[in-house]
Amino acid sequence: MAFIQQSFSVAFEYKVFFTEHLFSTDNRVFAQFLETRAEKGFRKKLLFIVDDGVSSRHDYLQEQITAYCADIEGFELVEDVIVVPGGEASKNDLQLFHWLVNAVDQHAIDRHSYIVAIGGGSVLDLVGYVAGVSHRGVKIIRIPTTVLSQNDSGVGVKNGINYHGKKNFLGTFAPPAAVFNDAHFLTTLDERDWRSGMVEAVKVALIKDAAFFDWMEANAAQLTEAEPTALNYLIHRCAELHMQHIGGGGDPFESGSSRPLDFGHWSAHKLEQLTDFELRHGEAVSIGIALDSVYSWLTGLLDPESLERIIQLLKALRLPLYHPLLEIEDDEAPIVAGLQEFREHLGGRLTISLLEAIGKGKEVHSIDVNNLRKAVNMLRDKW
Amino acid sequence: MAFIQQSFSVAFEYKVFFTEHLFSTDNRVFAQFLETRAEKGFRKKLLFIVDDGVSSRHDYLQEQITAYCADIEGFELVEDVIVVPGGEASKNDLQLFHWLVNAVDQHAIDRHSYIVAIGGGSVLDLVGYVAGVSHRGVKIIRIPTTVLSQNDSGVGVKNGINYHGKKNFLGTFAPPAAVFNDAHFLTTLDERDWRSGMVEAVKVALIKDAAFFDWMEANAAQLTEAEPTALNYLIHRCAELHMQHIGGGGDPFESGSSRPLDFGHWSAHKLEQLTDFELRHGEAVSIGIALDSVYSWLTGLLDPESLERIIQLLKALRLPLYHPLLEIEDDEAPIVAGLQEFREHLGGRLTISLLEAIGKGKEVHSIDVNNLRKAVNMLRDKW
Ligand SMILES: NC(=O)c1ccc[n+]([C@@H]2O[C@H](COP(=O)([O-])OP(=O)(O)OC[C@H]3O[C@@H](n4cnc5c(N)ncnc54)[C@H](O)[C@@H]3O)[C@@H](O)[C@H]2O)c1
Ligand SMILES: NC(=O)c1ccc[n+]([C@@H]2O[C@H](COP(=O)([O-])OP(=O)(O)OC[C@H]3O[C@@H](n4cnc5c(N)ncnc54)[C@H](O)[C@@H]3O)[C@@H](O)[C@H]2O)c1
Ligand SMILES: [Zn+2]
Ligand SMILES: [Zn+2]
Repeated sequence: MAFIQQSFSVAFEYKVFFTEHLFSTDNRVFAQFLETRAEKGFRKKLLFIVDDGVSSRHDYLQEQITAYCADIEGFELVEDVIVVPGGEASKNDLQLFHWLVNAVDQHAIDRHSYIVAIGGGSVLDLVGYVAGVSHRGVKIIRIPTTVLSQNDSGVGVKNGINYHGKKNFLGTFAPPAAVFNDAHFLTTLDERDWRSGMVEAVKVALIKDAAFFDWMEANAAQLTEAEPTALNYLIHRCAELHMQHIGGGGDPFESGSSRPLDFGHWSAHKLEQLTDFELRHGEAVSIGIALDSVYSWLTGLLDPESLERIIQLLKALRLPLYHPLLEIEDDEAPIVAGLQEFREHLGGRLTISLLEAIGKGKEVHSIDVNNLRKAVNMLRDKW
Repeated sequence: MAFIQQSFSVAFEYKVFFTEHLFSTDNRVFAQFLETRAEKGFRKKLLFIVDDGVSSRHDYLQEQITAYCADIEGFELVEDVIVVPGGEASKNDLQLFHWLVNAVDQHAIDRHSYIVAIGGGSVLDLVGYVAGVSHRGVKIIRIPTTVLSQNDSGVGVKNGINYHGKKNFLGTFAPPAAVFNDAHFLTTLDERDWRSGMVEAVKVALIKDAAFFDWMEANAAQLTEAEPTALNYLIHRCAELHMQHIGGGGDPFESGSSRPLDFGHWSAHKLEQLTDFELRHGEAVSIGIALDSVYSWLTGLLDPESLERIIQLLKALRLPLYHPLLEIEDDEAPIVAGLQEFREHLGGRLTISLLEAIGKGKEVHSIDVNNLRKAVNMLRDKW
């Protein structure tokens, strides 16, 4: 049988920088990065797109960006900094997508230009998708401004928008050119946002890194107060673990059966949807972690002391353990439907991460609804 | 300065199969390919999307597909074969994109499923884009049905749609799972379509493979009659050269300064647009090749005998050399504007492929409008 074989590899690399006051004139991190990307014969454009939740609380930002970018060799700032609404709503609005694609066109942003996105995970996902499909991929620099986006979503390789209510239905895998985590942005976050962003660190510690879990226990008081040194360490280690999972797993674009670090996420996705996104992602994941930890104990995988430590850490971080919509009255309960949807989302076989120990996950392929109901009831009544 | 370094490679591989009557029951090529992709625990879906220019001329197709796919282990055919309008218009219609994305959703096509696209380059580009962004990339099998798509567009790594009249403004780089070139489909092509599809072979021979050019000269009579053996060899060799360029160049996704094989294309893009796509892509490229070959001779790069051979081959293949919209009356001439647009498209520096010899391209970074005008006038008056 006649055929031609094609095979090639595409190498990707990027750095996640940790800094503060990124656009103050004495901070050269951003400028130095760009200077490594300057090329003779090209005058590369920088188009900034900023989350309004950030720009409204950091009102000096546009002016600072203009001053900072005025004389970076080989680069040229697009004068208008574009401001977009922040939060999940921005991922539901197809008009916003089209508006940004038009901006890319109008400002003649090409494959040598850079889009610079500043914002929470939602804005980074939206702008990442715009960049990912314009001209088949314009370079993007991400500047995450929430705990969640600095330690998880913003340092990875995915983008996406929602479509007809389906979360992240449209998107691409598109590694960034660089990521800049600026700790100063976090100072203006609502308490619910920085608190819930820490959950991804609990999640990844539970399945990958017991020592990191110990550290969180020891530093729970500082974390609860968002004490900067503790919060920065949490973000750094959490980002690192997520990046190692993506880069070290051999399947960063999840084309095989590789999966993201999604302990506690199957029920969280459903709860977010059931509460119409009233629950923050991190709050829903906190509940999901509690649920799957209790379930792990109930089915004999996890010892009771570890379970207690997990529950107590979530409580110490003032994260929720329960929501009334978890309630399982019969097999038609919405949360049970969530299992089925998760299976469909994986495309075939159900795979759920549970815990064998703190720091050690284990995949299972079925969930017993009776034990699940018991777990829900314990979360409601016991802690 | 604190940073975390991410780096990884993503490996891609696919085969382009050459066959005939792909879905006749005694042809096992397609079924055997799928069987290598079956996985225990998954029932993978196959969603077919077919160019109406193909289905209308091969009316047995839907029935044949249904019968063929009835018992492929581990796979399940989505009952409705979706038919979409063919030709460039399908890439201009955003409604069609949304309609197909909805079909992906409605039929619960996930990242383990396969979309099978059958059609010309336009339908493959549209469906490839739909697959490329749904769930961040659903697998796609391409079955190209035109000469151009079998020897060039369908065997590569790009997809795309037009946006506000801008050609391929939205798209992704997304290698297919496999490509099946079925020679039988070509028998129903309009003469203009198969004729113009051969131009890409002339193009790639001119910059990469003198022996292939010699072969085309020697077989011009058979090619002009679409004699199957000759046409199949042309397609095979042309596809191979394109694939080697993509896979062997070290930058398949064109993230650096790598460029597609675009000899003769800068003016062709402009002519297609100026004629409102009345000119076929291949016809426009034929004129573009003639123009850049004459220009190469006028500027002393190419010898006169080679130029004459190029012109005579295009004529023997009954391909056009000239269009009135090439005419350059002054520096504001549309074709001169095309140069500027091409520069913008490349994002900075102008880079045009010219010829040093048959089989040997050479890049230059400026074009002299006087010589360009002389070249246009020669094409109008001389041959
Ligand atoms: N791409 C991925 O791999 C990935 C991974 C996990 C989550 N996500 C996505 O991330 C999104 C959630 O992101 P998030 O948790 O960062 O929330 P968010 O982006 O929705 O932002 C929450 C709110 O905080 C505001 N905000 C942002 N930065 C601020 C700051 N510095 N000060 C004050 N307010 C600020 C925003 O305007 C918004 O109102 C979800 O859509 C989720 O699907 C993506
Ligand atoms: N993705 C890439 O890398 C790439 C490269 C080059 C060109 N392209 C794109 O390819 C497109 C052109 O593709 P094309 O030349 O194949 O033409 P096409 O897809 O526009 O098809 C031309 C006509 O032929 C009909 N047709 C298709 N197969 C047929 C068959 N077997 N019998 C009868 N009629 C048939 C179609 O319905 C249509 O009416 C352009 O949009 C161009 O931009 C893409
Ligand atoms: Zn999460
Ligand atoms: Zn072409």
